[in-house]
Amino acid sequence: MNRFNKRERAKTKIGKAASKVFNDKGFLETTIADIASAAKISKGGIFHYFPTKTEILYHILSEYMDVVLEGLDKDLENIETGSSRIQFIISRHIDLYDKNTAEAKLLLHEAHNLPLKKFKIIAEKEKKYFQTVANVLSDFLNGFSSKQKLTGITFALFGMLNWIYSWYRPRGPLTPKELSEIIYNIFTKGVGSYRRSRN
Amino acid sequence: MNRFNKRERAKTKIGKAASKVFNDKGFLETTIADIASAAKISKGGIFHYFPTKTEILYHILSEYMDVVLEGLDKDLENIETGSSRIQFIISRHIDLYDKNTAEAKLLLHEAHNLPLKKFKIIAEKEKKYFQTVANVLSDFLNGFSSKQKLTGITFALFGMLNWIYSWYRPRGPLTPKELSEIIYNIFTKGVGSYRRSRN
Repeated sequence: MNRFNKRERAKTKIGKAASKVFNDKGFLETTIADIASAAKISKGGIFHYFPTKTEILYHILSEYMDVVLEGLDKDLENIETGSSRIQFIISRHIDLYDKNTAEAKLLLHEAHNLPLKKFKIIAEKEKKYFQTVANVLSDFLNGFSSKQKLTGITFALFGMLNWIYSWYRPRGPLTPKELSEIIYNIFTKGVGSYRRSRN
Repeated sequence: MNRFNKRERAKTKIGKAASKVFNDKGFLETTIADIASAAKISKGGIFHYFPTKTEILYHILSEYMDVVLEGLDKDLENIETGSSRIQFIISRHIDLYDKNTAEAKLLLHEAHNLPLKKFKIIAEKEKKYFQTVANVLSDFLNGFSSKQKLTGITFALFGMLNWIYSWYRPRGPLTPKELSEIIYNIFTKGVGSYRRSRN
C-alpha cells in the first residue's frame, strides 16, 4: 500500500466517524474534539488530514456522490432498456442508503453548510445522477415530449427514493427488497400512462 | 376584535417574518435582532410575545400543522370514496406548500431544534395527518392486507409530495395543477396493482 492510499484510507476512516457525529449533533454544533473522540485519534491527528471541519464534511459528501455515480453508466449499459433499468436504479439507490445511511442523510441535511464553491461541486455530481436517471426514464417513455413533465416525473421517483431517509429502517419490518418492489410497482405501472407507443 | 385575537395576530405576523429569516439563515444562526428587523418591530416587541427564539419556531410549526389538519376530515367526508379523495389530498398538499412555502420547509429542516416535549406535539400532529392519508389509501385499496406494505405505499406518496420542497417552484414552468396531475397519475395508476377486488 503506497503512502497516498494510506492517507486516503485515514481520511475515509475519519469521515465515517464524523458522519455519525454530524448526524447526531448537527454539523454546526459538532466540534473537532467530538470527531477526534469518535474516530479514536487525537485532535492533532484530525488536523493532519483536514484543516477545517468543513473540509471533513466536503470529503464525506464528495466521496459519497462518487460511490453513487461509480459504475452506474456502465452497469446500465449492460441492462436491457426499459423497466429493468428502472428496477436496477431503485434497488441500487435503496441499497446505497442501506450501506451509507449516515452519509446519505448528511447530503440532505447539511450540504448547505459548505462554502458555495464546494457546494457547487457536490451539486454538479447530484445533477449528473439526476440526468442519468432522467435519461433512463425518457427512454422508458419512448421519448416523452414535454421537458417539464419529464422533470416532474423524475423528481416524483427521487421523492419516493429519498423520502425513505425520513422514515425507513432497513432492519425494520419491511425489507429493502420489499421496499424496492413497492416503489418499482407504483412507479413503473403508474408512469405507464405517460408512455408513448413507438409508432 | 378582542385582546386575545390581537395578540394572536401579532404572533402570527412575527411568525411569518421569522419563517423567512429561519429559512434564509438557518434557525441556529438567526438572532432575535434579525427577526425584529424582518418583522419591523423592536427586539422588546418580540420578547413581549415570545420569551425565546425556540418559542417562535414552535409557534410557526404548530400553526402550520393546524392549517394542514384544519377541515381535512370533514372535507374528505364530503368527497366520494376512492381516487377522488386521493386527488383531493394531492392538490391540497401542493396548494398548502404553494401558500406556506417557508413554514413547510421549516417543518422539514428545523423541527429537530425544538425541545423534545414540543417536538413531540408537532410529531403527533404529523402522525395524525399521515394516518388520515393512510386510511384514505387503505380504503382505496379495499382493505389492503399487510400493514407494512400500506406504510410503504403511504410514505411513497408522501415522498413524491414532500420532495417537491427540494426542487419545485410554483411559479416555474410546471404549474401546481400539472404537478398534482403527474403525482396523481403515477400514484393512483401505479398503486392500482395493489388493489384488491371487493369480492
